[in-house]
Amino acid sequence: MGFDTIWLDARIATMREDVGIATIEAPAAIAAKDGRIVFAGPMRDLPKGWDAATRVDCAGRWITPGLVDCHTHLVFGGDRAHEFELRLAGASYDEIARAGGGIASTVKATRAASEDALVAGALPRLDHLLREGVTTVEVKSGYGLDAETEARMLRAARRLGQERAVSITTTFLGAHALPPEAQGADPVAAKDAFIAKVCDEMLPALAAEGLADAVDAFCEGLAFSPDQTARVFAAAGRHGLPVKLHADQLSNGHGARLAAEWRALSADHVEYTDEAGAAALGRAGTVAVLLPGAYYFLREAQKPPIDGFRRHGTRMALATDCNPGTSPMTSLLLTMNMGATLFRLTVEECLAGVTREAARALGQLDRIGTLESGKWCDLAIWDIERPAELVYRLGFNPLHRRVWRGK
Amino acid sequence: MGFDTIWLDARIATMREDVGIATIEAPAAIAAKDGRIVFAGPMRDLPKGWDAATRVDCAGRWITPGLVDCHTHLVFGGDRAHEFELRLAGASYDEIARAGGGIASTVKATRAASEDALVAGALPRLDHLLREGVTTVEVKSGYGLDAETEARMLRAARRLGQERAVSITTTFLGAHALPPEAQGADPVAAKDAFIAKVCDEMLPALAAEGLADAVDAFCEGLAFSPDQTARVFAAAGRHGLPVKLHADQLSNGHGARLAAEWRALSADHVEYTDEAGAAALGRAGTVAVLLPGAYYFLREAQKPPIDGFRRHGTRMALATDCNPGTSPMTSLLLTMNMGATLFRLTVEECLAGVTREAARALGQLDRIGTLESGKWCDLAIWDIERPAELVYRLGFNPLHRRVWRGK
Ligand SMILES: [Zn+2]
Ligand SMILES: [Zn+2]
Repeated sequence: MGFDTIWLDARIATMREDVGIATIEAPAAIAAKDGRIVFAGPMRDLPKGWDAATRVDCAGRWITPGLVDCHTHLVFGGDRAHEFELRLAGASYDEIARAGGGIASTVKATRAASEDALVAGALPRLDHLLREGVTTVEVKSGYGLDAETEARMLRAARRLGQERAVSITTTFLGAHALPPEAQGADPVAAKDAFIAKVCDEMLPALAAEGLADAVDAFCEGLAFSPDQTARVFAAAGRHGLPVKLHADQLSNGHGARLAAEWRALSADHVEYTDEAGAAALGRAGTVAVLLPGAYYFLREAQKPPIDGFRRHGTRMALATDCNPGTSPMTSLLLTMNMGATLFRLTVEECLAGVTREAARALGQLDRIGTLESGKWCDLAIWDIERPAELVYRLGFNPLHRRVWRGK
Repeated sequence: MGFDTIWLDARIATMREDVGIATIEAPAAIAAKDGRIVFAGPMRDLPKGWDAATRVDCAGRWITPGLVDCHTHLVFGGDRAHEFELRLAGASYDEIARAGGGIASTVKATRAASEDALVAGALPRLDHLLREGVTTVEVKSGYGLDAETEARMLRAARRLGQERAVSITTTFLGAHALPPEAQGADPVAAKDAFIAKVCDEMLPALAAEGLADAVDAFCEGLAFSPDQTARVFAAAGRHGLPVKLHADQLSNGHGARLAAEWRALSADHVEYTDEAGAAALGRAGTVAVLLPGAYYFLREAQKPPIDGFRRHGTRMALATDCNPGTSPMTSLLLTMNMGATLFRLTVEECLAGVTREAARALGQLDRIGTLESGKWCDLAIWDIERPAELVYRLGFNPLHRRVWRGK
């Protein structure tokens, strides 16, 4: 059998559902052909007479699936460091909003940025993720809030996948916030009108251009209602696009239940999700995407119902939620530590959360997320003695090498 | 005037007491001669006819003092990732201790490690600090708890300063914990006997070899009493060594007051320090070293009395507390974010905390910690638009270049 590349003498955490972290008998090997895994197992099970154009000696290092960041707002204009500084100096949210801060400032800066500028701004953030072994990144729109800028954001996101050896998957988040020019005397009517625009103008145009792989919305008192969210989901369905939801982050708006009803890929944040919501997600196969970076950064006290998710077999993923306002975070390793330290996930849950379950949250578990024959050969190779180190340490990056599609 | 090197077209945060972050008129320059700063100011104030062997164009980048990590336990044997994993899986501290975990496991692994092994283990951790612009690191002993291993730890620490372009300052922390072989039926007597050993055997030997720059102790119910701590401080004084203290971390044992009475360089942790303790530190000029990584990792709820420190003019530094048990942290950038997010320090307090005040906590403010003529030319050069970015971001490293002693 002729492989393109084989990685030899490794310890392998396949993260396969049935076996978890530490299962392949060492020394193990992984082989790739045409970018896909064609062997992952103990070296003694290699087919007789195998051959490979390139052999890599891993010297006992650990290999995991390449990491998957399944929830980011990586593309945006401007930054909000100054706002952070003002808040620490005692300014209230109101004062900052009146000074043009908050999401409005990011919308303004994003609208003013060219596609090139958006790409250039996002690349250093992307590079930080890649340096930690990330091979797939979801990127949302949602700071344009007009047809033109939303499209530009998603084009910039697609471009990231051409500029770097990484898979980018895009999500249209037009229903992120009501843009300044859409405000009206009757807030419900104003939001209804904007949602109509999202569904009837923006989404059809983006879908026609093939710019969105999924559709997301922000269901929350300060954003959009369950009814408005349902309209967005229905529109996504008309275009054959899967949906996701920013759900129950700041209050229990039954967003998880709504996501489950619509068979969403994922319900994200879910701090305030109740037992019934956790059960609904489990039954629907909708992944709960936990975002401990935002929880930490906003100093929230309400933790997602981890035990409820466990009881109901609800899948849990972890993501950075990288965004300028509530989680300026570009480290999945730190995200794992926060998942363990703040939410008390186990090491195995954390690792599955940034590999297998993150892939599931993107509807891509058939292609990535575990190390199995037939999947893309996306690998992270680590200088560690045991996988727990990836979760345990703070501000340390033991990545030895990253492999995307066999290279 | 002939400089060795000049950095031109920079924005400079000198962190000088009188001016703070953003004060030198840009474009600014810094020049070094024989490793020391000989000019730091607006380019238009450069002396007429200046010349330099090397000119570096900073293209508008920010320069801060090289960062100072003033509290670490960077040298140790083994790791505690597995213990972390067991705890997340539901094991109690007792179960872990019975299984040989906790500090005892680190003591055992450290005693078993050669000096070379200790150096090799610490270097990747040190390298992570350096990658973020750290130029001075304090390293404590305290996992040997016998004369031979404590000396070996400090020799390993000194060696780190030969292996890398960084200043290492060493602290003898014999009074860290009671070693297993010193336990006795009468715990007070056992601790008294061990403290006598620390004072009368270990310290004189280490001082004779010039291995310790300072002496530290852990004053806490589960460690040593104020009386025992005072004996250690008195012994340090006999050898002309300055003292520091792990104080009031888990309860208010009036450690801050004790540190102030002994004119300690710093009182570290200080979560449970009361108003009187905060005032005593301010009066004594003893720096409060805040360790938000340990606070985060241990999920503590008691924050240090930041407002009290502000009221009493108590200086505040920030450090990683890098150690395998309670803060496996190797990022001062993340430490700053935690200082701001968890303790509500301002951006300026965070930056001063890892430069000027950290230098003060090491008794080295005359040599490092701010950018002023006569000090060592230790610089961190950053790809940022404003210093607040260094504090605001999570898991991102915008370091452009690090300079240690002019190089
Ligand atoms: Zn989000
Ligand atoms: Zn310590």
